Amino acid sequence: MIRVGILGATGYTALELMKILLRHPQVEIAVLTSRQEGNPHVGTVHPQLLGRVDARLENLGPNEVAGRVDCVFSCLPHCASASVIPYYLDAGRRVVDFSADYRLNSADVFTKWYGENHPDAERLGSVVYGLPEINAERIAEAPLVANPGCYPTSTILALAPLLKAKLIEPQTIIVDSKSGVSGAGRTPKLMTHYPECNESISAYNVGRHRHTPEIAQVLSDTSGLDVSVIFTPHLVPMDRGILTTTYSTPSSDVSEERLLDALREFYAEKPFVRVVDHLPGTKDVSGTNFCDVTARVVGGRVVTISCIDNLVKGASGLAVQNLNLMYGFPETTAL
Amino acid sequence: MIRVGILGATGYTALELMKILLRHPQVEIAVLTSRQEGNPHVGTVHPQLLGRVDARLENLGPNEVAGRVDCVFSCLPHCASASVIPYYLDAGRRVVDFSADYRLNSADVFTKWYGENHPDAERLGSVVYGLPEINAERIAEAPLVANPGCYPTSTILALAPLLKAKLIEPQTIIVDSKSGVSGAGRTPKLMTHYPECNESISAYNVGRHRHTPEIAQVLSDTSGLDVSVIFTPHLVPMDRGILTTTYSTPSSDVSEERLLDALREFYAEKPFVRVVDHLPGTKDVSGTNFCDVTARVVGGRVVTISCIDNLVKGASGLAVQNLNLMYGFPETTAL
Amino acid sequence: MIRVGILGATGYTALELMKILLRHPQVEIAVLTSRQEGNPHVGTVHPQLLGRVDARLENLGPNEVAGRVDCVFSCLPHCASASVIPYYLDAGRRVVDFSADYRLNSADVFTKWYGENHPDAERLGSVVYGLPEINAERIAEAPLVANPGCYPTSTILALAPLLKAKLIEPQTIIVDSKSGVSGAGRTPKLMTHYPECNESISAYNVGRHRHTPEIAQVLSDTSGLDVSVIFTPHLVPMDRGILTTTYSTPSSDVSEERLLDALREFYAEKPFVRVVDHLPGTKDVSGTNFCDVTARVVGGRVVTISCIDNLVKGASGLAVQNLNLMYGFPETTAL
Amino acid sequence: MIRVGILGATGYTALELMKILLRHPQVEIAVLTSRQEGNPHVGTVHPQLLGRVDARLENLGPNEVAGRVDCVFSCLPHCASASVIPYYLDAGRRVVDFSADYRLNSADVFTKWYGENHPDAERLGSVVYGLPEINAERIAEAPLVANPGCYPTSTILALAPLLKAKLIEPQTIIVDSKSGVSGAGRTPKLMTHYPECNESISAYNVGRHRHTPEIAQVLSDTSGLDVSVIFTPHLVPMDRGILTTTYSTPSSDVSEERLLDALREFYAEKPFVRVVDHLPGTKDVSGTNFCDVTARVVGGRVVTISCIDNLVKGASGLAVQNLNLMYGFPETTAL
Repeated sequence: MIRVGILGATGYTALELMKILLRHPQVEIAVLTSRQEGNPHVGTVHPQLLGRVDARLENLGPNEVAGRVDCVFSCLPHCASASVIPYYLDAGRRVVDFSADYRLNSADVFTKWYGENHPDAERLGSVVYGLPEINAERIAEAPLVANPGCYPTSTILALAPLLKAKLIEPQTIIVDSKSGVSGAGRTPKLMTHYPECNESISAYNVGRHRHTPEIAQVLSDTSGLDVSVIFTPHLVPMDRGILTTTYSTPSSDVSEERLLDALREFYAEKPFVRVVDHLPGTKDVSGTNFCDVTARVVGGRVVTISCIDNLVKGASGLAVQNLNLMYGFPETTAL
Repeated sequence: MIRVGILGATGYTALELMKILLRHPQVEIAVLTSRQEGNPHVGTVHPQLLGRVDARLENLGPNEVAGRVDCVFSCLPHCASASVIPYYLDAGRRVVDFSADYRLNSADVFTKWYGENHPDAERLGSVVYGLPEINAERIAEAPLVANPGCYPTSTILALAPLLKAKLIEPQTIIVDSKSGVSGAGRTPKLMTHYPECNESISAYNVGRHRHTPEIAQVLSDTSGLDVSVIFTPHLVPMDRGILTTTYSTPSSDVSEERLLDALREFYAEKPFVRVVDHLPGTKDVSGTNFCDVTARVVGGRVVTISCIDNLVKGASGLAVQNLNLMYGFPETTAL
Repeated sequence: MIRVGILGATGYTALELMKILLRHPQVEIAVLTSRQEGNPHVGTVHPQLLGRVDARLENLGPNEVAGRVDCVFSCLPHCASASVIPYYLDAGRRVVDFSADYRLNSADVFTKWYGENHPDAERLGSVVYGLPEINAERIAEAPLVANPGCYPTSTILALAPLLKAKLIEPQTIIVDSKSGVSGAGRTPKLMTHYPECNESISAYNVGRHRHTPEIAQVLSDTSGLDVSVIFTPHLVPMDRGILTTTYSTPSSDVSEERLLDALREFYAEKPFVRVVDHLPGTKDVSGTNFCDVTARVVGGRVVTISCIDNLVKGASGLAVQNLNLMYGFPETTAL
Repeated sequence: MIRVGILGATGYTALELMKILLRHPQVEIAVLTSRQEGNPHVGTVHPQLLGRVDARLENLGPNEVAGRVDCVFSCLPHCASASVIPYYLDAGRRVVDFSADYRLNSADVFTKWYGENHPDAERLGSVVYGLPEINAERIAEAPLVANPGCYPTSTILALAPLLKAKLIEPQTIIVDSKSGVSGAGRTPKLMTHYPECNESISAYNVGRHRHTPEIAQVLSDTSGLDVSVIFTPHLVPMDRGILTTTYSTPSSDVSEERLLDALREFYAEKPFVRVVDHLPGTKDVSGTNFCDVTARVVGGRVVTISCIDNLVKGASGLAVQNLNLMYGFPETTAL
């Protein structure tokens, strides 16, 4: 039985994580932390968990948490996460970090996009990027896994196989993503106030979204090519789900069948990517750890369409998939 | 040309009011106030008004505003509204107050439900309740009109004719209302954060909603009976609209036809209430100043169903209807 | 390992049922039937099940199905269901019927509300109503279980304990229910066409909804009282969830605490009903087999508020809970 | 007073058209046609119009309609529209056609994309494409105006100025559009059944959408360049609105300011296009005839973002704007 702690347990990814872990036969939720006053019961903060998780959110530091857990999921904000994770690692605990802190290889790139100095810069470059479809073996051994961003997951799963098979040109990639509102977190803001974002779709952070360098870096690392991307995220009036449409120039004349074959081959042994012939929608994967992906050739360009549930395959399901690999459980346990 | 000022112009009712006033041939939007810093252009606060309203939100006191307007719409919060309205009245300006401040006749009842001392208590009891279907003549003469609450409007329009015709028992009324989220205002809160309230319906403020005494008072005043109500509001995942279902005991054996006749008779000359045979939905009245209402007899009880757009007939459309009456314009102008 | 067949596997309740059964360690999905031509793969009809259920929908009669299953879930329409279920019972198979066919005790009442002669009238009166919180012991022995309607489940769970404890008057009950759109099934109709029902709430079938006699009968049977109800269903723009608000007259002076105690006592040993102090919303129970319920005293009346996921506790989760009882599995298995 | 007829008055564009025409001081709705039996009152088919339009839907042929109108709006399906429009033109009536029948210059291209032979092929090539921002003068004189498609309107308004100013390469254009569900019409289908498309986003008709050749043709005609486009439409869970994101390669080094200047210059005298600095959302233009558009330079590519209300600027508002030009009314009348 693995005792896990969840740091920053008030948000949507923590909620989704607990719902998944409740089905996990080898995991016990041992500690939940939060800076909320009064140690509220988890059911007060997340009414969905009433009668299912009997625990309080405690305002604890890493020294108090580490003694009660084997493994930590950090749902803390960026920089806050990398400020405490070193302590857990030094104490011999394993960590899955939901924040962006350990996804990028370079502290300079981090600072450029996140606007802050990295609290644990020397570790960058050696942390495993936790996308099991690409890094399963390294994840199994890793003390610390950087859980990918939701947009990058939906994008990388569509494009990595095509880049690796040299079917598309790495400097021509356009990524147009559409996300449900839970991706913006649980803190009320005008942008995510119901009457503002309901019945409306808008683009945001055009050319400036922080997932841009993450996508480019991981696609480059995976393919050995110098990949650049233009990334445009959109906010869609729905709770959860990301649909990513990409456009790129084929390296040479390529057929739809060749594209789909490359995807099918890449994911032949992967339980959570479904290469489909039809055009998938986010509802097909809602509440699941699946990524559905397909490809088309349109007007001489390659178009891919992929979708995930941003809270599951884009966050907490992926984290449990990583945990399963880290501890040698069957990869699909609880998922 | 009537010059109007809008106090507290950043919210949804002010936005809706401006959209309606733009179509009004006899009205000029002369002043917009807000406490936002920097005198932002209205198009910055309400992108929908870009290129349609060319004005800034100014942080002005009543002495500065009064000189530039003939009439004021106050969209200020309760108590704030009654703190400035006396100044406008003293200066000879006419006022339509969107807040709850002047709806109740009694300062004690106000304090009981709103938890604050009324800033202008002596005026209570003499202010006209601005529901034109009931008070048209008094509104025409009034210096100050208390614009009704959204729930009361949907409820009173359904029940006043039946009470007046003595078709239902005044002590048996149950009001079950369902409202879209814009009714909660524009300030971001967890309850109205998109991923919290989307795909969910819930009751709130059961037995404690501040519109309860307003409904009871106006129905009592209108019918001459001692009316009490049980009122349960619900939050529905949609932008706008209120559907109110009421249940009451008939005074004697009554048929559906008799109920519908009483409604039709009451509203024979009223342009904005449509008595219908079918079961109406809020979309039928969305963006309009209509109230659709019908009645049924079920299991020996009287059931009424009425719907309005909470931002139009439940707020800003109603306010313009009041303005039209106050200044002798055709009642339907701009509506 | 129990081999189950699902009759009429194209709809939403069948989809939800399969998603739940996939998590059930003692159940194998052995047969899926449908009248769709060409024996489509289940993943074609339900893309969510791609790669999870490997089966085709077959156009089979009961003689062909019975040989391959131990138990049948019938998701067929009313009357169609009761036309084939006798065959399964005669062949010694156990049946959970999702249709309304075996919920009512009287063929006359059935004909009055459903407008058709009952195909298996003589069996009525002896079939177990499959609400485990009330009938667990009888369900365990039953060859045939009538799975309750979604509205009745949300209503009965709120009121049965109060009636049984003689806290409310059985002739005063008003039931105002609000349901998500999946309750209307998967066949496209104008009423459930997205641009018609989105951003709108409406009442429907007022005084005529077929769940009315079911609610009255089961509440009467459970309490030993003669219960009548006025029932008004509403359509809410959301996928799933039912919130039911009831109003009734207390038998004598009763406090909120007394009501909540009665509920807590009744459900002390029941894993799927959560008696809560706060006002629950449907999102709290979405995707779960829970019913959350609370009670209030308002203006001398008793108000209860309860919510369920109509596809889980209101249909497929409840059916699996029944299956668990019928086969002696732990009641919460897969739920 | 212009007497107008609306052919095919049961759908959403006809409803929106009537709502706009009700505000038009120079227009009278003289005839509504439909093939529905029994000449239903318009309020039966469109409850929103109860008490506002007093007319019946009549099953009439063009000879009967022509005698009662000056101008016809055809909301008929493609091919059906071009089968009756010649009659109206021969009778000297002016026509605004909502269908795709007269948008394309070539009957061969029509047949390729619409799969049918064009019923009035010889007229193609001489019909005015009814986008006032581009063709205002020709519209003023035209007997027949081809009202543009919704996706083309949102796309052409963003790109035509940039192509005309030679700021982007005409062979590099990618168009990623997102539309609300009303764009799919009022006929219930599984794809637009609420529980299917709610809480989901999906791409559809990738590489095969019929608006593709319309976009390419009009952009080519307007710019004098040979423009090709890749077009991907997506279905978004909201009633109305289209957001179009385009990607293209700049002709030479170009700044954001240069792009915005080109847009501002092009639309300097146009009342319904708002060139904005911020990123617009569809709610900003909901219920209005505005198109909001902006541009960015991202990673060396040009990105434009534009949004319209598909039922107003994308259909019925645009049609009234055309009517205004055709009859010499101020362009913004009723809009």
